[in-house]
Amino acid sequence: AVKTVQVSGRTKNHFPDLDRLEPRHNALSAFDEQSMLRAVGSKDMTEFVQSVVPKSILGKVDLNDSEEVLGEKRWLEWFSDMMSQNKLMKQCIGMGYHETKTPNVILRNVLESPGWYTPYTPYQAEISQGRLESLMNFQQVVIDLTGLPLSNASLLDEATACAEALSLSIQRHKSKRKRAFASANLHPASLALLKTRAKGFGCDLVIGDAFEADLTDPSLCCVIVQYPDTNGSVQDFKSLFEKAKEHGVLSVCAADLLSLTLLTPPGELGADVACGTTQRFGVPLGFGGPHAAYFATKQEYARITPGRIIGVSRDREGNNAFRMALQTREQHIKREKATSNICTAQALLANIAGFYAVWHGPDGLRDIANDIHLKAKTLAEGLKAAGHTIVSEHYFDTVNVRLGNGLTAREFVSRCEAAEINVRVLSDDQVTIALDECTYQEHVVALLACAGLQDADVEALVAAAKAVEAIPENLTRSSKFLEHEVFHLHRSETDMMRYIYRLEKKDLGLNTAMIPLGSCTMKLNAAVEMLPITWAHVNSIHPFAPVNQVAGYEAMLKDLEDILSQVTGMTHTSLQPNSGAQGEYTGLRCIQAYHASRGEGHRNVCIVPSSAHGTNPASAAMVGLDIAVVKCLPDGAIDLEHLKVILEKHAGKVAASMITYPSTFGVFDENIKTITDMIHEEGGQVYIDGANFNAQMGMAFPGEYGGDVLHLNLHKTFAIPHGGGGPGMGPICMKAHLAPFMPGTSSPGIGCGYDQPFGQVSQAPYGSAGVLPISYAYMKLMGMNGLRRSSEQALLSANYMKERLSSAFPILYTGLNGRCAHEFILDLRPYKKTAGVEVEDVAKRLMDYNFHAPTMSFPVAGTLMIEPTESESRAELDRFVDAMLQIREEIRQIENGELPHDDNPLKNAPHTIAHMVGDWTRAYSRDTGAFPLESLRRNKLWPSVSRIDSAFGDRNFMCTCPPIETYM
Amino acid sequence: AVKTVQVSGRTKNHFPDLDRLEPRHNALSAFDEQSMLRAVGSKDMTEFVQSVVPKSILGKVDLNDSEEVLGEKRWLEWFSDMMSQNKLMKQCIGMGYHETKTPNVILRNVLESPGWYTPYTPYQAEISQGRLESLMNFQQVVIDLTGLPLSNASLLDEATACAEALSLSIQRHKSKRKRAFASANLHPASLALLKTRAKGFGCDLVIGDAFEADLTDPSLCCVIVQYPDTNGSVQDFKSLFEKAKEHGVLSVCAADLLSLTLLTPPGELGADVACGTTQRFGVPLGFGGPHAAYFATKQEYARITPGRIIGVSRDREGNNAFRMALQTREQHIKREKATSNICTAQALLANIAGFYAVWHGPDGLRDIANDIHLKAKTLAEGLKAAGHTIVSEHYFDTVNVRLGNGLTAREFVSRCEAAEINVRVLSDDQVTIALDECTYQEHVVALLACAGLQDADVEALVAAAKAVEAIPENLTRSSKFLEHEVFHLHRSETDMMRYIYRLEKKDLGLNTAMIPLGSCTMKLNAAVEMLPITWAHVNSIHPFAPVNQVAGYEAMLKDLEDILSQVTGMTHTSLQPNSGAQGEYTGLRCIQAYHASRGEGHRNVCIVPSSAHGTNPASAAMVGLDIAVVKCLPDGAIDLEHLKVILEKHAGKVAASMITYPSTFGVFDENIKTITDMIHEEGGQVYIDGANFNAQMGMAFPGEYGGDVLHLNLHKTFAIPHGGGGPGMGPICMKAHLAPFMPGTSSPGIGCGYDQPFGQVSQAPYGSAGVLPISYAYMKLMGMNGLRRSSEQALLSANYMKERLSSAFPILYTGLNGRCAHEFILDLRPYKKTAGVEVEDVAKRLMDYNFHAPTMSFPVAGTLMIEPTESESRAELDRFVDAMLQIREEIRQIENGELPHDDNPLKNAPHTIAHMVGDWTRAYSRDTGAFPLESLRRNKLWPSVSRIDSAFGDRNFMCTCPPIETYM
Repeated sequence: AVKTVQVSGRTKNHFPDLDRLEPRHNALSAFDEQSMLRAVGSKDMTEFVQSVVPKSILGKVDLNDSEEVLGEKRWLEWFSDMMSQNKLMKQCIGMGYHETKTPNVILRNVLESPGWYTPYTPYQAEISQGRLESLMNFQQVVIDLTGLPLSNASLLDEATACAEALSLSIQRHKSKRKRAFASANLHPASLALLKTRAKGFGCDLVIGDAFEADLTDPSLCCVIVQYPDTNGSVQDFKSLFEKAKEHGVLSVCAADLLSLTLLTPPGELGADVACGTTQRFGVPLGFGGPHAAYFATKQEYARITPGRIIGVSRDREGNNAFRMALQTREQHIKREKATSNICTAQALLANIAGFYAVWHGPDGLRDIANDIHLKAKTLAEGLKAAGHTIVSEHYFDTVNVRLGNGLTAREFVSRCEAAEINVRVLSDDQVTIALDECTYQEHVVALLACAGLQDADVEALVAAAKAVEAIPENLTRSSKFLEHEVFHLHRSETDMMRYIYRLEKKDLGLNTAMIPLGSCTMKLNAAVEMLPITWAHVNSIHPFAPVNQVAGYEAMLKDLEDILSQVTGMTHTSLQPNSGAQGEYTGLRCIQAYHASRGEGHRNVCIVPSSAHGTNPASAAMVGLDIAVVKCLPDGAIDLEHLKVILEKHAGKVAASMITYPSTFGVFDENIKTITDMIHEEGGQVYIDGANFNAQMGMAFPGEYGGDVLHLNLHKTFAIPHGGGGPGMGPICMKAHLAPFMPGTSSPGIGCGYDQPFGQVSQAPYGSAGVLPISYAYMKLMGMNGLRRSSEQALLSANYMKERLSSAFPILYTGLNGRCAHEFILDLRPYKKTAGVEVEDVAKRLMDYNFHAPTMSFPVAGTLMIEPTESESRAELDRFVDAMLQIREEIRQIENGELPHDDNPLKNAPHTIAHMVGDWTRAYSRDTGAFPLESLRRNKLWPSVSRIDSAFGDRNFMCTCPPIETYM
Repeated sequence: AVKTVQVSGRTKNHFPDLDRLEPRHNALSAFDEQSMLRAVGSKDMTEFVQSVVPKSILGKVDLNDSEEVLGEKRWLEWFSDMMSQNKLMKQCIGMGYHETKTPNVILRNVLESPGWYTPYTPYQAEISQGRLESLMNFQQVVIDLTGLPLSNASLLDEATACAEALSLSIQRHKSKRKRAFASANLHPASLALLKTRAKGFGCDLVIGDAFEADLTDPSLCCVIVQYPDTNGSVQDFKSLFEKAKEHGVLSVCAADLLSLTLLTPPGELGADVACGTTQRFGVPLGFGGPHAAYFATKQEYARITPGRIIGVSRDREGNNAFRMALQTREQHIKREKATSNICTAQALLANIAGFYAVWHGPDGLRDIANDIHLKAKTLAEGLKAAGHTIVSEHYFDTVNVRLGNGLTAREFVSRCEAAEINVRVLSDDQVTIALDECTYQEHVVALLACAGLQDADVEALVAAAKAVEAIPENLTRSSKFLEHEVFHLHRSETDMMRYIYRLEKKDLGLNTAMIPLGSCTMKLNAAVEMLPITWAHVNSIHPFAPVNQVAGYEAMLKDLEDILSQVTGMTHTSLQPNSGAQGEYTGLRCIQAYHASRGEGHRNVCIVPSSAHGTNPASAAMVGLDIAVVKCLPDGAIDLEHLKVILEKHAGKVAASMITYPSTFGVFDENIKTITDMIHEEGGQVYIDGANFNAQMGMAFPGEYGGDVLHLNLHKTFAIPHGGGGPGMGPICMKAHLAPFMPGTSSPGIGCGYDQPFGQVSQAPYGSAGVLPISYAYMKLMGMNGLRRSSEQALLSANYMKERLSSAFPILYTGLNGRCAHEFILDLRPYKKTAGVEVEDVAKRLMDYNFHAPTMSFPVAGTLMIEPTESESRAELDRFVDAMLQIREEIRQIENGELPHDDNPLKNAPHTIAHMVGDWTRAYSRDTGAFPLESLRRNKLWPSVSRIDSAFGDRNFMCTCPPIETYM
């Protein structure tokens, strides 16, 4: 059983805590549960579960929690004690991570606000205009600061962004150039990820001094440099980029965004791609994440740019409206042709970074940069005075120093740690010291004292520093940035607060209504789970801090790994992958390494059922596996006969099979054990896609029904909020034979992985460790029995809704006994013919009913996939069903001819207040448009724009903030 | 100058913090300030200020801040260090203060949400339906638990509620019965406040054993008891109350609300009034406040019930709508006839308590109470086993123990403190131990160990405890409570979160728009100021904790007192008064005590200008002073000639004069020094009402222009949020000669006051100490220069708006050079005649423009008093002016006959979405109704109901939650 909290020295507690999370998270009351069981024809939960989950895999694990599950208050005390073991230090390690001041108005109203962290990815743009506008601000910041005309809406981390730049470069040359050059002065993590990814692509990665790269090499696709580099040095890449261009080599420039307020931007130096992190724009360190990486490039590469790009389009009335314009490299578009499997972004963190720029504006950002720069120069002057040597003449915030006077790096670091400051060691006598906006004069003085200069005369040092030109004139930025009015209008806290709220109120999050997104598990993100992520001891730790400073994280990570291993029936867990897609990539690379270790590196086929989520083949393609698709039967089950054929065809070459369980059709395949046995017999490894893990917690264990490795989406099943499109986390759990090949880390501090890591997949050793407390809290506060009840209720609610809706709509793919798992598919295709109604019309009409649409056209075009989760009460389930039944009535009116095909509430949805106020010439009443159910009169979020014209946006691609007048 | 933060051992800082609050709080940019100065005809700020503030009082204090003003981040670190000196203990002291678990969903979404803490008192009901519904829930909780049919919407604290019950009893007998009996077993603070108040009323207070009270005494107005009493004992008052009733004596029962889930409620015992605190319903301890007290009584006393009562009425379409139904005892109704001066409530805290009951429901509350009760009985069994004696046979949560085995109370307490538990000492060998929902089994075990029982056998003790009947059968509650569906519908966190948001979104707070309420100073409540109030070291301290545990609070309180004394030009400050009205009462009592100490106790006249806020005469009346009204001249200044006449008439009898400065007309009276000199010459003391202190910070000092004592509204000038109608704080600052008479405290722990306190005015020594960090942060983060800039910008913004509006509306009362101070009065009376438009129509129409109306009909009927504060940017000021100018156009259209008198946008305001969706037969378009200015299309909060029919509500008084069907 999952271990729960140990309260030291406690005997049996006769007063169990009354504030336990479980009855608050699992939303069905005992009364509702009973009546719903009756409605689906089961006498009790046990019988019901047996009617859904195949007996062959059900419940082999003892669920008796051996220890007590704590209440929320006691948990917070307990967890606070644990995390207080992390030491708060002044972090001067740098390497892409800097302390930053999250403006308190943003902390309170964005990072700590369910209105911002509970929404989903903005696919339904009409009820997502708030965060789309904010993400557009983010893009504008990146565009302006990098000097490149196109930005996406964030990537997972800086190292991943570098790897994606490599990928873009390879694609740009249609995979004909298979060599890349990376500067040795990139951050070690960036180099590590480039190595990992290059190997997957079969690309030859050369690492060295970029100025000595052979740019004439016709196989060279790109040169990747860093600006300022990992040691703080600022170098002029202009002629390098020019020469690269001459030879068709792409120039990729990883750059510190804040430094670009002072430095000539990469775009002006001729770079084709700029990438990096926006972490220091107000996003807390966490313990290495989550943060929003950025990726900027030229217009001509728009269609091979990774991630999501927000664009401007217009609604039916011609008003400006934002939407996701391009997701050209997302997996659901390319499937096995993909060279990227990116789908998660870091929307919440990108929003924070965007708001940070809105808050400070160009002058404020420049002031911050100048302040840091002056402190760095002051520090450098002091170090020189103390007899040390400054290695880099030109720098922004990071001082690279060779220690003199016989002072060793070890001794200096030890003095600094005593002064509660962390610096970075380069060698026995060399360190770098990275300053940031949280560096106070006291820190400079303390650092100088550690370096041997006691009681520094700061005034004199500052005077000397001002005379130094650490940024050469030819690299001094002259171009303006952030001239758009949004970066000038919200300078007072009152204005800023109102701007944040104005945007928030446009969006539908879980704080407004159910978001029944099939395969996305939009469950409660409980306040108790969210509180710790803004504690200083959780969110201010450098990922490369010395081991002895992070005992709290170490304890939590170890415990979390154990719990995840247990709940999946596995033995080991890696917390490094930063998203589900990363998890897939990682799991497959582990499998490959495992095969290779046994001399079976030739195994290169990955079997994927036709029902698989597009990320599966995309991931397989990325690691260089060939994909063999196995068919599914009409009921959604894998076609065993066809599987047999496929296995025979690829005999000896099967590396892996990727199976989503329950399937993306929302069905528990009864043959799962047979299937995994067949794969194993053929020598393949079984990868389970844990996207649907919420259907089986505590009742079925992938490790027991044949999985060798699986990833979990912590942002689905384990309560990390979707954040309006990120963050996410995709750890992998595996059997012991794969564990030695888990990802490792290139960095100091606590790491992860075993003795034969295949490489590194995230910049930070534990991915977005800063949000792991959310999942940890969820699991500890629920206990294994509570988790099982989560899954039971998720299954019951889905079947209850299916039961009620099946009278009105065809349901696709039900399994055992006609049951669905935790989600089910409504088929809307018939209404296209009978009423001209398409699935999109229903999705938009649901907005009028105060709902976010279910997953559209996945896994089957023309359908809706509905997943209620366990966090919705029966009242909300019924409200959704009532809405769908009423929509069916509306369709019937079209079918009957009572309403025209081109003028009805579905085609005109969503209805806005502007519609209500304006002229009304429709074939139905305003009332029908606005309030199709009476309850809506009391509670309804109105879409801020009407249906958005995607085609217009495609024809008129624009990913920068529109002029302010157009908002007026 | 105001002292700012000392950073230990720092030399001059060459890198001032860039994240200072001042430029974010004061909203006018340098550019806007310049252009606005031009608009009002001043060349610079200095000249402008000189044109507003009389030279005679301007600027005598050196504003050079001697120390650095910190940025927000560093401030939080510094203040956290300070408050970490408070020791976190398990608090078992009781006395009306208990630890409680604030449900995290309420913590995050109510207490930490600007949507709940920034709104004003719900006078404008149409945009306040969310918190009105929540306050109605609060009333329902009180009604159900006390068994009395009427509840108000909260009072300041339990002791004040007891004093108000006394006041009601006196009123009930039309002041003919001037003796009251109070049980000696009331909380000491309640007794102290009863003494204070009784003396002011000239009432004879007898304290003793209630069962021995002479109820036949014809001068006895009431008997006041506590249930359970301060020592935890539960007694049966049924026959006592019956007997009292026979003799026309009112029965007042202070009662613990949580205990009433198990005990027969006071109403069923026959009490006329029940009162107490709702603190343990999820409201953090703070350091004694703020919390919501409750007050319940019989319907027949509705019109003499203190505070505000929320009631149900209907809007123009007949929909249910909430509003403040009765404020019968508020000062603006009774003025000098008042026996109460209460205007502040504790809305934010009442909302939390109401939500707590919604969250737990009747079963949950009963479970909590039973759990506590069983723990108490278990503790008692253990104490008995250890050889001690349980003094009270019947109790709920508080065990009263006489120590045996030679164990002294001192030794026991010292052991408990070592175990980090605070208990209450009654005598050398007697203590009480109060348990609560945060008491764990470990605490019980630790307490028993301190009492000499090591390693208690909890299982055996629990078994024994279960056999004990500590609540007698005849006092066991049998009646149901909280049967309304609102207490049953929101049991999952998802549902609860949505319910909270649904209510929040109905209300207009500062997070939506300017609330330009004259005399209320609705300024920014910055996030940095709000963050500390939910830190454990700030909000978990018992007000009577031993002195050595509260060093953090002590340091802050001392520093805050000094700062407030300095900014007012006084020498001493008392932080005890819990509201502005309490401050007035306190200041006057100090003055009386001062006169008495000099043998001039006969001075009994208080001079009040006719322009005074109604609270002034109400406060004077409450302390037994006769009121002499001095006239004002047409320009708003005090009529010096009339003052002379008044002074002569009352020669030798003048106790005080109460002067609001600048006046409630928004004018700096140039003669202020002459006036204060005249009062002083007559032997009177000058009380300054600091309601308008925001006009003069750092530029004029009441202590210098003749004030002897003044109160400050920390919830106006010093950034404590209005909380939707409380909390507030009204400390008084005074000259040294009054200081000895400051209020004292009856309680252990750190107190306040000097050697000759006149009495006690709040239950806790420092009133609502838990919100004082807000004002402290504001002042420390602004520095004296920043505060002065606040006032400068407040004056400039008011004059700028006045300038722009004066072309369209008559402005009443301008002072020096035609300037107003920080607020000004628009005269709308002419339009009654020309267009039938009343001030209420304009107020409601402003909602359509996305604004909360300014103060209506105060100080002059038929006017609006506008106060922008310094926190509004020019854009928002202009938006308001534009709205008013457009409204003037709308009035003109009525004047011109283009619109009928009875069908126009003003009379029909506010317009709701229901209006837009429904049939439209009005004389103007939907567009005109909804979007009279284009910018409203982008941003507008729609009132959730249309204009509320107050007369209907008055005729059909109802202060309980309406049946759920009526919400449908």
